[in-house]
Amino acid sequence: MAATLKEIAEICGVTVSTVSNVLNDKPKVGEEKKQQILKVVEELGYQPNYFAQGIRKTQKRIIGIITEDIKEFATVSMVETIMATLEGANYRTMLLNMRMYDKWTNQWYDDNIKIAESSKPLFQQIMSVKVDGFIYIAGHCRKIQCIPDNIDFPGVVLYGLSDKAEYPSVVLDDETGGYSAAQFVISKGHKEFGIITGKLDNMHSSKRLTGIQKAMFEAGIPYNPDIVIEGDWARESGYAGAKVLMEKGINSILCMNDLMAAGVYDYLNEHGLAPGKDITVFGYDNREISDYLYPRLSTYDLKLENLAQKAAEIMLDILDESKDTAEYHNNYIAKIPGELVIRNSI
Amino acid sequence: MAATLKEIAEICGVTVSTVSNVLNDKPKVGEEKKQQILKVVEELGYQPNYFAQGIRKTQKRIIGIITEDIKEFATVSMVETIMATLEGANYRTMLLNMRMYDKWTNQWYDDNIKIAESSKPLFQQIMSVKVDGFIYIAGHCRKIQCIPDNIDFPGVVLYGLSDKAEYPSVVLDDETGGYSAAQFVISKGHKEFGIITGKLDNMHSSKRLTGIQKAMFEAGIPYNPDIVIEGDWARESGYAGAKVLMEKGINSILCMNDLMAAGVYDYLNEHGLAPGKDITVFGYDNREISDYLYPRLSTYDLKLENLAQKAAEIMLDILDESKDTAEYHNNYIAKIPGELVIRNSI
Repeated sequence: MAATLKEIAEICGVTVSTVSNVLNDKPKVGEEKKQQILKVVEELGYQPNYFAQGIRKTQKRIIGIITEDIKEFATVSMVETIMATLEGANYRTMLLNMRMYDKWTNQWYDDNIKIAESSKPLFQQIMSVKVDGFIYIAGHCRKIQCIPDNIDFPGVVLYGLSDKAEYPSVVLDDETGGYSAAQFVISKGHKEFGIITGKLDNMHSSKRLTGIQKAMFEAGIPYNPDIVIEGDWARESGYAGAKVLMEKGINSILCMNDLMAAGVYDYLNEHGLAPGKDITVFGYDNREISDYLYPRLSTYDLKLENLAQKAAEIMLDILDESKDTAEYHNNYIAKIPGELVIRNSI
Repeated sequence: MAATLKEIAEICGVTVSTVSNVLNDKPKVGEEKKQQILKVVEELGYQPNYFAQGIRKTQKRIIGIITEDIKEFATVSMVETIMATLEGANYRTMLLNMRMYDKWTNQWYDDNIKIAESSKPLFQQIMSVKVDGFIYIAGHCRKIQCIPDNIDFPGVVLYGLSDKAEYPSVVLDDETGGYSAAQFVISKGHKEFGIITGKLDNMHSSKRLTGIQKAMFEAGIPYNPDIVIEGDWARESGYAGAKVLMEKGINSILCMNDLMAAGVYDYLNEHGLAPGKDITVFGYDNREISDYLYPRLSTYDLKLENLAQKAAEIMLDILDESKDTAEYHNNYIAKIPGELVIRNSI
């Protein structure tokens, strides 16, 4: 593990400046030359190097944001909320992007080598800048294992779970989401509804399914695995799932994202069935497209701005030395629920 | 205008390091102490401060990306293409975001005070880091007037037009786009079609309209201003435009973006008319939603990845000292055309 300038200075019994001088091989400067230079600086002005000066400051008031992929639909609105919240507290931000989907499409979810390869240089970059803290935004929820050991500033993991006790995590409350969605579908009189899940080796899917099962259990509805179809989040898998469910005579479908719900619409339109009339459909995510399907799709809004604001507020709390924030460094997890968006598909 | 470290050093006849030392008030370091420190560094390892070291290097291999708003639909995919292209040439990137739409919705388009307030600290931030160059991504096309005079590294303006000769610009070829869209609509036998424009004080609208007029003129179709409706890019203005055009008996509509085309769909669906059957509709932008409307919307893809790649390639050319890139610093403008996306609405 690498030492910081400060640690080296303490061991040597010298100032941080002295260590910095040695490392940068600075020559000695005579008093006369020094005055001459300062005079010219005064005459011409000088654009200070913020980050270089920051080496010896405790706060540069900059937070690094590392995203697994800014093109992931959920990421950008979280990024902008984080920036707004931090800027409101007089912090600046810089965003570094791993581009995981761009590089690997979906072939990286559990590939810790690919993830480490892409994240390591970005962590080095924010370490070099010596940001005050970082927020790591996952592209999908899982244990985040790529945070290096030698980081010496605080961090928050967003949309994923930190594997290190000292980093608090902020995630979707997928179980409550699945519960709310199913409870709503049931409240509309649907006692037998098909479910199209995302990939089942995924935390979002498994938690949402648990929530759905709870709502069904409470309503006394038996859980029938034959009408639970595993999708893969893509539109086409919603189409395929609809085909299976239609052939079983199901007339109500709950999808674990809006893209698969769009695939259900595709199947229904192609077969002369009217979504929302012949077959009710419920989505999940409240992506932009859900409001452009016809009829407009009922869905579950993730409230990404609430997740992002929570993450930014935790960061600000940790950076506020007047606050006791020990709880955040002991496997802290905040689960943020979303809310139903009722439109015309059910 | 502030001087650089290098300029001050040249005037004083000393090295940049000497100036840096004086400015940072570094004490002298004895040889024995120096060796002791270096030994500890060797034993513990040391995380070098990339940016601080960079003061004396000519290349840090970092490009700053400044966006007017990453939530603008066109911005994120351009950002990711820029990052991919630069990373392919072994440059890193950092993104700083002005959040103009987030702060002001649409109330900032020509407000140079708001724009300067938001851009100035970000330019200062990338100056402090001493990036090798910057790419400025506008949220809509206009003259970009906020680039400070004291920048001493190259830049490219993307999705907008630089007002300084030394910064090349890469923009949509809106005139060709409007021409292609209209030519296609005409080729399908529509001799009289309504047009719903964006705001007409906007470069995107005026250029697209010129292109449409050219295609009509070539086809010998008279241009009738009575069926050219000014929208404001929003879905609701498409709805309102459709109402006016339907009342005039028009059965073919070309919209200057997909959101307004969705508004046309809304009007048609509400009045029992089938988009693509009773009334043909053509969009613009090829946003994600255009593929989720029913029937799927024919539209014009902006080819944002081509714009972004061009901007990144210009930046790489400028940074390549073996290339003569004088042309880029003389009011250079690259106009990038898009392409038709034919689906089922026409």
